[in-house]
Formats: sequence, C-alpha cells, structure tokens
Amino acid sequence: MSPVDLSLPFACPLPISDYPTVLLAHGGGGRLSHQLIDKVFAKAFANELLAPMHDGAVMRVPAGRIAMSTDSFVVKPLFFPGGNIGELAVCGTVNDLAMCGATPMWLTAGYILEEGLSMETLWRVASSMRQAADQAGVKIVTGDTKVVDRGKGDGIFINTAGVGLIPEGIEVAPLRMAAGDVVLLSGDIGRHGVAILSVRDGLSFESELQSDAAPLNGLVTSLLTAVGNDVHVLRDPTRGGVASALCELASAAKLGVEIHEKAIPVRDAVRGACEMLGLDPLYVANEGKLVAFVKKERADEALAALRAHPLGTEASIIGQVTAEHPGRVVMKSGMGGKRVIEMMSGEQLPRIC
Amino acid sequence: MSPVDLSLPFACPLPISDYPTVLLAHGGGGRLSHQLIDKVFAKAFANELLAPMHDGAVMRVPAGRIAMSTDSFVVKPLFFPGGNIGELAVCGTVNDLAMCGATPMWLTAGYILEEGLSMETLWRVASSMRQAADQAGVKIVTGDTKVVDRGKGDGIFINTAGVGLIPEGIEVAPLRMAAGDVVLLSGDIGRHGVAILSVRDGLSFESELQSDAAPLNGLVTSLLTAVGNDVHVLRDPTRGGVASALCELASAAKLGVEIHEKAIPVRDAVRGACEMLGLDPLYVANEGKLVAFVKKERADEALAALRAHPLGTEASIIGQVTAEHPGRVVMKSGMGGKRVIEMMSGEQLPRIC
Repeated sequence: MSPVDLSLPFACPLPISDYPTVLLAHGGGGRLSHQLIDKVFAKAFANELLAPMHDGAVMRVPAGRIAMSTDSFVVKPLFFPGGNIGELAVCGTVNDLAMCGATPMWLTAGYILEEGLSMETLWRVASSMRQAADQAGVKIVTGDTKVVDRGKGDGIFINTAGVGLIPEGIEVAPLRMAAGDVVLLSGDIGRHGVAILSVRDGLSFESELQSDAAPLNGLVTSLLTAVGNDVHVLRDPTRGGVASALCELASAAKLGVEIHEKAIPVRDAVRGACEMLGLDPLYVANEGKLVAFVKKERADEALAALRAHPLGTEASIIGQVTAEHPGRVVMKSGMGGKRVIEMMSGEQLPRIC
Repeated sequence: MSPVDLSLPFACPLPISDYPTVLLAHGGGGRLSHQLIDKVFAKAFANELLAPMHDGAVMRVPAGRIAMSTDSFVVKPLFFPGGNIGELAVCGTVNDLAMCGATPMWLTAGYILEEGLSMETLWRVASSMRQAADQAGVKIVTGDTKVVDRGKGDGIFINTAGVGLIPEGIEVAPLRMAAGDVVLLSGDIGRHGVAILSVRDGLSFESELQSDAAPLNGLVTSLLTAVGNDVHVLRDPTRGGVASALCELASAAKLGVEIHEKAIPVRDAVRGACEMLGLDPLYVANEGKLVAFVKKERADEALAALRAHPLGTEASIIGQVTAEHPGRVVMKSGMGGKRVIEMMSGEQLPRIC
C-alpha cells in the first residue's frame, strides 16, 4: 500500500479549525464530543451504516459462519515510511479476519487520544483509515472516542475490531495442518519492523525501505478461489515475525515444520539493517505478508494464484509439514546445516504495531 | 452488579508468579506474550470459541440482522466502589448492543497495558471480566494485548467490541421516536459518576455510594417481551448523563422531549455529593440505567415490565415526546417552571468510563 495521499477530497481541509488540539472535553460525551464525531469521524468514514449514529451499527447477514477479530495499535512513531497507525489499524484487523478464511466486511474503531494531540494529526489518521478501508472493501460502521490527560497516553492508540463472513465450504484453522502440507510465503520479510526502526528516536538510519503494510483479503480470495478448502492454515506473521508464527502453529497442530533458509526472500536493505542492529529478519514483523499451509498436491496452483496477485509476486514455497519433531520448527541453512527455530523470547522491537 | 468476588475458583491463585509485573516483552508476540495469553486471558475467559487460539473466532449465525458496537475504557481509578474497569468494559459493550435491541452474544477484548502494571491487578481485572460476561450471558471469544512503555499509558486501557443478534420484528432506533411516546427511566441517576469521584485523588469523600454498573440486556429482554416493537428507542445515559442522552435523541429525531424533574429518582447521597461538587445529577454518568421511548398506549405495560426486573424496580415515566420545540429537551421543575436542557458543554468528569 502506498503512503497516505492527502490530496483526496475528503482529506482536505481540516474540518475543525476552532480547536487546534484535542481537549479532555472531546471525550466527555457532550457538545465537543459530538463536534469531533460529526466533523472528523463521521466525515472521514461516511457510509450508510454509520449514518444513524446509534450506540451500534446494524447489518444484515446470511445464515452461516462469521469471524470476529480485534487488534489494538500503539505503533511509535504514528507516521512511518510506507504507512501510519490508521492504515495499520485497518489492515491489521482486515488481515486477521482474512487469516480465518473470512471475507472482511465491517470494522469498529475505538480511539484513545491524549489531551493535546494535534487535530490535524487526528484528521490525517482518520482519513488514512478511510482510504485503507476503501482499498480493503470494508466499512467502518461504529466507533468510540476517549481522551486521557496529558502524559497518560501517547498521541493516539487505536483499536479496531471486525466481522467477516466465511464462505460456505471453507475452513481455515491451525488444526487443519497435515503432514505433507507445503508452506508458502507471499513475499519478502522484515520490511515493516525495519521501516519503523529506521525512524525511531535515537536510532534513525538512512533507508529507502517502506513498510509492507497492506490489506491481504484480496490475496486470500485469489488463493481460496484457486485451491478452495485445500488451503489448510493461513497466518500473517506480524509481531515475532515468520519464526514466531510458524512456532505457534507447529505447537498448536503438534506437527513439525521444516523450512529452507534460501527460499525465504529478504531484501538487501532489510538484511543490512538487521545485521547492523543485531536482529534476525525471521523474527522481524511484517504487516502485508502471509504464510499458507496448503495440501501438497495443490502447491503449484496455490503458488501461481499468489504470484498472480500484486501482493504476492514474490511468493515462494518455503517448506513443508512433517510428522517428525512435532511442535518444532527446523530450518535448513544454505550450507546444508539444520537448526531449531525457537519462538522469540524477550522483546526485539517494542511498539511496532 | 455486586463488587468483584475474588473467592470464585478461577480468580485464585494468581497464575503467573515468575513475573510480578507486566514487561514490554509481554506484548512482543514471543514467548512471554504466549505465557500471558495462556495463563491469564485463556484461563480467565476459557470457552470453546476462544480455545482454537486463532487470529479470530468463528461463530455460526442465523440469517438476519446483527448489531456491532465498540467502547474503550480508560476509567480512573481502575477499581472503584461497586466495580472496576474490567466489569465496566463488559457491561459497556453489552449495554450498547442491548440499546440496539440486540441480544449480545460475543465480545472481543483488546488490552493496552503499561509496562510495570502489577500482574495481580491484571488478573483481578480479567477475572472480573469473566464474571461480568457470565452474568450477561456473553462470551469473550478473541483478544489482543499490547504493552506500552512506562509513562505512555496508565495501567490498563481496555477496548471491547461486540456482536449481538437482533430478534425478528424488533427495530429499536433513534428515528423511530414519535410524538406522544412516553419516556421511561429504569431507576435513579448519577451513581456511577459520583462513585468514581468519591475515590479520585485529591477529592475523596466519605460515601456509601456504589456504581450502578450492570449489564442491561436482561432488562431490555423483559421490556421487549412485554411490548415488542412498540419500544421505539433505547439509550443508556452514560457520559453526559440523562440530559445529554435526551438532547442527542431529540436532535436526531427532530422532535421535542419534555421531562418532569420530580419524576426522576436521585439518591440523597448523589444529590448531596453533586451539591458539594457543583454538579447537576442530570449530567452525571450512569452505567446501569436506560431510557426507553415507548408508544403511549403501552406505557403501563412497559413500566410494569421494567419494574418486575431486579434492575428496574425504581423505573418511572419521566416525560413524553412532543412535536413542539423540535430538537429540544425541556424540563418542568417541581415549582411549575420550565427550563431548556442543553447538551453538556465542557468536561464535568474526565475518565469516568
């Protein structure tokens, strides 16, 4: 996803000029709260489901299965190369729903604002959420705003929760992993974490890198359309990176996962930054990648479907599931050696999402 | 709802003894994150929908309408007379769904924890959420945890979002308000706000008052069972109190609302505290009350249904809807005078929910 384009009509001009910053009263439920909702959120998100301004939104669903997911976002800084907290908040929940095999439909947005936040920053974030929602084909249908006193928050925290509809016949879940499944990765890893680090206070370094933040529901639809329910498991390797995601799944499914180091794409800039900072790209967060476990016989079709989508052009098969070493992930190095991949311990990169 | 009973089996003992406080790594997506989820949240909330520990939860729904709602909670202090942030987080979203005429079913829980938070506090809050969810008959089905560095948050912030199912034939919405409707209030007002204020730093005063925080879905079911779709509008008067809720609805429906001061129950202790603090109880938050707009001919049945429920024993008819003064709320005083009730301006009580 490209960086926020503030030239779109709804992003300009800033609609509240009388209060340049957020006040405690903007969260008090009175006149200023209503002004904030009317002039910022209702204007940025405008849609027919949000319009009634009720305590909640009402939608019609067909009989079947829904998925629900939630994510809070505390990324620092709020704006980073390739994205911002608003875009991330939409993509994060859209992607969690997509990883359940669901078609993401509706999002809620909960804001915790720090007193003194610039109204312009809030507007840029809200506008960006609208753009990301449009890109993902979802609607933000209801929300909530709280304001905390100066020094008790950090600018903006956003929670999004979402509901998606799961197509008939699709069941994507960790426990469907089976020995023999191939493991696919949709592209190169580590870009989001490194992009954030490149602009951190006291750590900034020159880099052309941009976050890979993107809504993955279109990519998942391509995959499910190609191989249907032979997609067994999907996961977006965010915090903790590809390593932690695979460890978690292997442990849940009580099966072994074998991956091949050479098959995992890493940009030179990411590799360089990681060497400089003492990080392993396998543990660095992504916000626009997925790993897919697919029935072996459908591997080529799955790979072709991923590669045919703009977000999956660099997709590759990175490994397979084995009945050996249940619960463990083992990586074969380029030199032929093997090492056990452990779940991340400690904290590599705080507040990257 | 009674204060948290920590004697319940799942609330004791504290399940993580090796880390007495929350570390940044508890939000990093690695080993400590998993320990926190397994030992605190999965244990407190245990249910079959949460169990798969996927990126989201999957539920089956019938064809029809669903309601979605969200609320973030930043109440200060975390524990107050009659409740705590966890209980509030469950009741708040349950009540918002109920105000849409929906039967609340599933909640998500998103935590933003401050580094250094006591693990015992977190456990007490999570246990209390489970108790409140049980009381309301809802399940917490998926969640997320982020940790921010010390001084960038304030202990615990919680977001909940929820989904409820709207029964066939029920349509509760601000625009259904009609001239002639009676306005019912389910009990005495202002207790939540005053209970919070009574324990605020630098302001604490002696009071026996407890918050009225409670899940209102049972009360709504009683009302809908009695008078069905002749319930036109429901609203829980939280931030901004009964005054702001009525102003908001009058403005949305473009109708006038007339209320009678004498009909609105206020406890002596609330009235006394409000006089001392210069507050108007009509603007003070409630967390376990509702106002209902009901077709005139069904007023007695509606009142009887509310009073028959433990949370509505003090319910009363407080006014009616009129085609006069559209968009305005007018209160008749005990002395026969009239005054216009304005939406709250400014901030009376920051961070009461």
